[in-house]
Amino acid sequence: MRFIPSDTLRELITMPEAITAMQSAFSALSDGSAVVPLRTTLDFPGSDARALIMPAYHSSSRYFTTKIVTVCPTNAARHLPLIHGTLIVTDGSTGKTLALMDAEWITALRTGAASGLATEWMALPDAHTLGVFGTGAQAYEQVRGVMSVRKLTRIIIFGRDPQKTTTFCKTVSNQFAIPCFPAQAPQEVSQCDILCCATNAHNPVFEDKYLTHGTHINGIGAFKPAMREIPSATIARARIIVDQRASAWREAGDLILAQKDGVVAEDCIAGEIGEVVTHKTSGRISREQITIFKSVGNAIQDNVIASMAYERALKAGIGTEI
Amino acid sequence: MRFIPSDTLRELITMPEAITAMQSAFSALSDGSAVVPLRTTLDFPGSDARALIMPAYHSSSRYFTTKIVTVCPTNAARHLPLIHGTLIVTDGSTGKTLALMDAEWITALRTGAASGLATEWMALPDAHTLGVFGTGAQAYEQVRGVMSVRKLTRIIIFGRDPQKTTTFCKTVSNQFAIPCFPAQAPQEVSQCDILCCATNAHNPVFEDKYLTHGTHINGIGAFKPAMREIPSATIARARIIVDQRASAWREAGDLILAQKDGVVAEDCIAGEIGEVVTHKTSGRISREQITIFKSVGNAIQDNVIASMAYERALKAGIGTEI
Repeated sequence: MRFIPSDTLRELITMPEAITAMQSAFSALSDGSAVVPLRTTLDFPGSDARALIMPAYHSSSRYFTTKIVTVCPTNAARHLPLIHGTLIVTDGSTGKTLALMDAEWITALRTGAASGLATEWMALPDAHTLGVFGTGAQAYEQVRGVMSVRKLTRIIIFGRDPQKTTTFCKTVSNQFAIPCFPAQAPQEVSQCDILCCATNAHNPVFEDKYLTHGTHINGIGAFKPAMREIPSATIARARIIVDQRASAWREAGDLILAQKDGVVAEDCIAGEIGEVVTHKTSGRISREQITIFKSVGNAIQDNVIASMAYERALKAGIGTEI
Repeated sequence: MRFIPSDTLRELITMPEAITAMQSAFSALSDGSAVVPLRTTLDFPGSDARALIMPAYHSSSRYFTTKIVTVCPTNAARHLPLIHGTLIVTDGSTGKTLALMDAEWITALRTGAASGLATEWMALPDAHTLGVFGTGAQAYEQVRGVMSVRKLTRIIIFGRDPQKTTTFCKTVSNQFAIPCFPAQAPQEVSQCDILCCATNAHNPVFEDKYLTHGTHINGIGAFKPAMREIPSATIARARIIVDQRASAWREAGDLILAQKDGVVAEDCIAGEIGEVVTHKTSGRISREQITIFKSVGNAIQDNVIASMAYERALKAGIGTEI
């Protein structure tokens, strides 16, 4: 079994490659060639921590993957990461365990790449201003994903903690040579052609009235029924594309709570991103339309990225045999 | 994260300790203090291979474990093990991945220990002849489990492959200094006070008519609805104790097929082994009674053994930090 640590993983796959991989992953999810059982959720009694166990198999590759992710909200107070994760790659033919990887980077990369893919197919072609809610590892990969598919001229960061927001802006400006600064007021949402919501919020992070015509929103937080980032009024008027219909209605708080609010019905989902990239439906119908890509994350995304990382690590002699 | 290889694991826990651990595991399962989501089964399309993903958390310990097991029937023809497995130990408080272990030994040990525990509580006190169906890794640990709780004077092995059976008998005789020999005829079942069925059979491995009064049977194969080792006639007349009611009716072919045959109803299960060891029900009512412990295996068994192995490995400095 090969152990591939996080720092070497980063060098193995570029963001444009990850976006192409997401196109294949979501196509497989929509056409049924991906085998993805419902993910298992385990709540630890006596705490608000939980584990997600996410297995997936892609019949066109030979790899079966299982990602084990834990989310421990009390970790922040202990100066530990909120999310930890491990990913196991198994040979789908012999059942042998092939590799063990750190799952944090894979999760952030595939989530950023999914937003990149959705932005490519849904945002206005001339979109140039990105607004980001969140300042964590996910937010960083959201920036990378979006800038791979649109020529950004500036990035506005909407963070709760001023110090973290400033640090994040500096990192992004330095890394990508795009002006990146903290938002001064909530109305600045109206200057954004693309919004990425990458928070752990339980209430909307912006007001619907500030949205400009034509804005595209990637919503990647709100992966539990009681969480939400996007206001019901926006859900009600937007064209909504999801990663997977079944998991959206099971887990996506943004949609579930909007339905509870009575503003939308089940038919509010226009399609899956896998249907958009295979031309079965459109990501956007008009320039004026607000579009939303709502994703709770799917194990097939991890499968495709981890399989690629494993093959490349093997070829390049990266990692340790244990 | 600590990697603990198979060969060092073997030295960490004795069979009597594992049997005591099973008592705690099954008590927790029956009283609800164990958190064990339904295990996920993933069938690989285009082959008869499958993966089982088994998470568990024991609220009295701080460890969350996930076992990933694959069963690939075509492996035999390729001279590869039928079963492969990996187990991940996670800190239930911080969510950090703590350890990675080979799951094969843990699976065999906990399965042998469960049969040891059931035999202790269900077999006749003076039982001395053990019959075993199967000659694999599981069969070996079944012998170890049973001999830890009863004074065995001889062991009869019922194997399909004469050469494998002879080899297995030699190994057992040498290891445990108990006479162990291949069965010459199916009727030799009548000489056995205890039977362990540890096969991948889809049809009964013995005939009901050969059973002696008072025999105790441990059935640990038949973990899928279409598999069976124990004849319906035996199911119909025995006192049946299971590892867990819910999983028995979902997976235990021996019971599901007997119900289909119309010989038993759902109330044929007298109790769970966790109820027996906490004196809520009895494993055996009379000397004459045939008793069956039917187990499909439960993730809490792996959790308890892996947690113990991890703590001991840490203390003894065994394994490698990766």
